[in-house]
Amino acid sequence: MSEKNERPSKSVQESMIEMCQLVLPNDTNIIGNLLGGRLMHWIDIAGALAASRHSNCVVATAALDSLDFRHPVRVGEMVRLKPRITWVGNTSMEVRVDVYCENMKTGAVIKTNKAYITFVALDDKGQPTQVPSLIINTEEEKLEYEKAIQRRKIRLENRKKPKV
Amino acid sequence: MSEKNERPSKSVQESMIEMCQLVLPNDTNIIGNLLGGRLMHWIDIAGALAASRHSNCVVATAALDSLDFRHPVRVGEMVRLKPRITWVGNTSMEVRVDVYCENMKTGAVIKTNKAYITFVALDDKGQPTQVPSLIINTEEEKLEYEKAIQRRKIRLENRKKPKV
Amino acid sequence: MSEKNERPSKSVQESMIEMCQLVLPNDTNIIGNLLGGRLMHWIDIAGALAASRHSNCVVATAALDSLDFRHPVRVGEMVRLKPRITWVGNTSMEVRVDVYCENMKTGAVIKTNKAYITFVALDDKGQPTQVPSLIINTEEEKLEYEKAIQRRKIRLENRKKPKV
Amino acid sequence: MSEKNERPSKSVQESMIEMCQLVLPNDTNIIGNLLGGRLMHWIDIAGALAASRHSNCVVATAALDSLDFRHPVRVGEMVRLKPRITWVGNTSMEVRVDVYCENMKTGAVIKTNKAYITFVALDDKGQPTQVPSLIINTEEEKLEYEKAIQRRKIRLENRKKPKV
Amino acid sequence: MSEKNERPSKSVQESMIEMCQLVLPNDTNIIGNLLGGRLMHWIDIAGALAASRHSNCVVATAALDSLDFRHPVRVGEMVRLKPRITWVGNTSMEVRVDVYCENMKTGAVIKTNKAYITFVALDDKGQPTQVPSLIINTEEEKLEYEKAIQRRKIRLENRKKPKV
Amino acid sequence: MSEKNERPSKSVQESMIEMCQLVLPNDTNIIGNLLGGRLMHWIDIAGALAASRHSNCVVATAALDSLDFRHPVRVGEMVRLKPRITWVGNTSMEVRVDVYCENMKTGAVIKTNKAYITFVALDDKGQPTQVPSLIINTEEEKLEYEKAIQRRKIRLENRKKPKV
Repeated sequence: MSEKNERPSKSVQESMIEMCQLVLPNDTNIIGNLLGGRLMHWIDIAGALAASRHSNCVVATAALDSLDFRHPVRVGEMVRLKPRITWVGNTSMEVRVDVYCENMKTGAVIKTNKAYITFVALDDKGQPTQVPSLIINTEEEKLEYEKAIQRRKIRLENRKKPKV
Repeated sequence: MSEKNERPSKSVQESMIEMCQLVLPNDTNIIGNLLGGRLMHWIDIAGALAASRHSNCVVATAALDSLDFRHPVRVGEMVRLKPRITWVGNTSMEVRVDVYCENMKTGAVIKTNKAYITFVALDDKGQPTQVPSLIINTEEEKLEYEKAIQRRKIRLENRKKPKV
Repeated sequence: MSEKNERPSKSVQESMIEMCQLVLPNDTNIIGNLLGGRLMHWIDIAGALAASRHSNCVVATAALDSLDFRHPVRVGEMVRLKPRITWVGNTSMEVRVDVYCENMKTGAVIKTNKAYITFVALDDKGQPTQVPSLIINTEEEKLEYEKAIQRRKIRLENRKKPKV
Repeated sequence: MSEKNERPSKSVQESMIEMCQLVLPNDTNIIGNLLGGRLMHWIDIAGALAASRHSNCVVATAALDSLDFRHPVRVGEMVRLKPRITWVGNTSMEVRVDVYCENMKTGAVIKTNKAYITFVALDDKGQPTQVPSLIINTEEEKLEYEKAIQRRKIRLENRKKPKV
Repeated sequence: MSEKNERPSKSVQESMIEMCQLVLPNDTNIIGNLLGGRLMHWIDIAGALAASRHSNCVVATAALDSLDFRHPVRVGEMVRLKPRITWVGNTSMEVRVDVYCENMKTGAVIKTNKAYITFVALDDKGQPTQVPSLIINTEEEKLEYEKAIQRRKIRLENRKKPKV
Repeated sequence: MSEKNERPSKSVQESMIEMCQLVLPNDTNIIGNLLGGRLMHWIDIAGALAASRHSNCVVATAALDSLDFRHPVRVGEMVRLKPRITWVGNTSMEVRVDVYCENMKTGAVIKTNKAYITFVALDDKGQPTQVPSLIINTEEEKLEYEKAIQRRKIRLENRKKPKV
C-alpha cells in the first residue's frame, strides 16, 4: 500500500454489502437451470458495488480468477452474493465474492461459488486513480490479504506470457 | 397467531436478507432519476424474498401500504433494500422494507422509503397455506407487531368500503 | 388551483391514454402469476404518461396510495391500464390508474386494481414547476376531485407523523 | 368469410385496444433515436393483442407488409400503437397498426407508421384454428376490408415466386 | 453511386458479420414459440450492424420490405442472422438479412426468413451523410444489386401514393 | 476420448459460430463502458452455443478459466465473439471464446479477451451424457488440444485443494 496515500484508510467491513437475486424464468436455460453467464454478471456487479464503496469511484473490471460451477441453481431459488475487499493496491482492488444458493421451499443453503475479481478505480476522465488503503482487523483478513498477494503475482506472471 | 400451527415458529432474524441494486441507465427517466415504478418493483421482490424465506412457500403480493418518494435517486447510485417480517397471520405476512440510497462518490446514505407489504403464502396448487408463527424477541419487534395489527385493521376496514 | 397560473387549463380527457401489456414469462413467478412489483411498475409508468401529458413536463413519482392485489393475473393474459388525472395542485398532480386484466381465451375481464399516484412536474433543472390547472367537466370528475382533496389532506397529515 | 363458421362474429371495435410505450434509454441508439427493431417489436405485440382478442386464441405472426420509418422517435417520447382488425379469413387475420409518436414537452403528435400484419390463430396443439368472422359496420371498414383482399392477393402471388 | 464520393469504396465482404441468438423463455409466447416482433428486432440489429460497418456511421432504419414467417421457432433453438449489403446510394444502403433457425438437439437447420432493410447513414448531428460506394465482385452480388434497384423503384413509387 | 463412443465424431469447424452484440446503454456503467459482467454473460452464451452444437445437448457451465479485461469497450461499439471447441472428454467440452471489439466509426478492431470455458452436456433428466469425440484437423487445433489437457490437469488439481 502506498505510503503517500492521502485518502483515509478503510476497513474491510466498511464496504461489505449483500446482494440477493431471485432466479426468474429468463435467467435460466430450457431445463430451468440458472445460466452460468447470468451468475457471472451478478458476481461482477456485487464485486463492483463493494469496490465502488471502498474507493468512492466508478470501477472497471480488470480480471476474474478461475471460477467453478459445481451446483446447478434452479428457477425460483434465491442467490445471495457477499462481496468483501481482500487486497488493495495503488489504483486496483481485489474483491472476493462468496455465492450462496438458497432453496426457498426447504431452506437449504449451498455455497456455490467463490470468485476473486480485480477492479480498477477510475476518475471522472476514466483514468486509474488512487484508492484508500485497507485496514486489516482480523487474522482471517490478514491471511486472505497474504493469499491475495500470491494471486496477484500469478496474474502478473500470466500476463507476461505471450497472448495467442 | 393460530394455536394449532404445526410448523415450527421462526424469529424475525431468520428471514432477514439484504438486496442491493445498482441504478443502471434503463432504470431511470431522461433526467437520470430512478423511475418510481422500478423502485416499487425492487421493494416488492425484496419483501417477497423475506416472506418466502419465512414461509418456505411461493408468495403472492396481497397489499401495499401507501408509499412516499421524497428523495430522487440518481443513476449510478446504489439502492439497499432491507426487508423484515413484522407480523404473521394464518396464511399472510406483513413485511416492512426499508430502502436506503447510497451515493457511491460521497458515501452519503439517505433513507428514502419505508414500505409495508402484505404477502400470502401459496401451496403447490396456488391456494393460501399456513405459515409459521413469528417469534418476537425485542421491544422494537413487539412495538412493530402491535402497530402491524393496527395497520391490518385499517386495511380490512378499507376493504369493506365500496370499490368504485 | 393557483389563480395566476399562466398555462392554459386542460380537461381530464386531454391527457387520458391507455396502456396494454401482454404478461410474458419473465413478468411472472414460478407458478405463472404476474409479480406484484411488475404490475406496480406498469401502474407507475401509465400514471406518469398521463401526468406528463397534462403538464408537458418530465414528472417524478411523489406518493403512491395503498394498493390491493385481490386477483392473480396469469402469464399470457393482457393487462390494460387506464390513467386519468383526478386533481391538480401548483406543481403536483394526482392520477388514478384503473387496472383491468383480460383473459385472452375467454375474453373475461376483471378490474384488478385502482391506484392513486401523485406526481410532481419537473423543469429542465429537475426543480418542481407549475402545471396547468384542471378543467372539470362531469359530475364524476367533480366527485373524484373532491375526494382527491380529502386524500391529499390525509397524506399531508401522515407526512407530519414521525418517520421511524 | 366461411359460411359454416360456428363462432359468433365480432365487430372491428370489439378487439380494438391501445398500447402506449415510453421510450427509455435502452430502446435507443447512441444518438438517442428509437431503434427501428424495438418499434417493430411493439407493433407486432400490439397487433397480436388485437388478433388474440378477436380470435380468443394464441396467435402467431405470419407476415408483415413493407414498413416505412420516416420520422425519428426520441428518448423520452411516447409511442402510441392502435391496432384494428381489417380482414379475417378461415384461420388468419390481417391487423392494421397505426403508430403515433408524441413529444411530451410540446404535445406535438406525428403519425410515424402504418403497418399491416397477418396473424394465424393457434389451438392448444399449436395448429391453425378457425376464427370468428368480422362484422363490417362502417364505410371505412368496408374499404379497408376490400383493400385487404387486394393485399392478400399480392402476398399470395409473392409467395409463389421462387425463394432465393 | 455518386461519382464524387471521396470515401474509399468497400466490397460486400468487408461488412459481413454473423449474429447468433439463443431463444430464451422471455423471447417466446406462452406456447414456447419465438415472438415475431423479437425476431424483427434481431433482424433490424443485424442489418444495422452491417450497414454501420459499411458506412462507419450510426445508421437509422428507413424501410423494411415485406416479411414472411413460415416456420415457428422454438425456445432453446438458435437463430443465426447473416446480413449483407446489397445496394448503396448516396446516403442510404439496402441490407439483406438471411435468417436461419437451428434445432440444437437434431442439428436441423431451416432458413426461416429473408429480409430487406434500408438504412440511412447519419453524421454526428443526426443528418444523412454520404456512404462509401459498393464494390461488386461476384455475379450473385451483381444480380442482387440489380434487383435492389428494382425494389428501390417500387418503394419510391409506393411512397408517392397517398398515406391514409 | 472414450473408445466406445457411439456418436459420430465431429470436427472443430462443425460447431463454430459467431455472435455479434451491439453495446447498448443498459450494458454500460455511468461513464459509458461495457460492464465486465455483461461481457462475461455474452462469453458464456457464445461458448454454450458452440458446445451445444457439438453435443446436440443442453449444456451447463462447469468452469471458467481466469479472464483479463485490458481494454474498455464503449457504448455503440460492436462485440464479436468467436467460440471454438478445443477439447472433448466423456461428458464435458472445453470451448475457447475469442472476443473482439470493433469501433464502428473508425473500423478499428481490438482483441479484448480470450476465455476458456468448460461445459457439461446434459440429457433430458439433467444428467451428464456422452458427447461426440473431436476430430483434429490442423496443427493449431492439435496444439490447442494438448494445451487443453494441461489446463484440465491444473483445474482438477485446483479442485482437490481445500475449498474455504
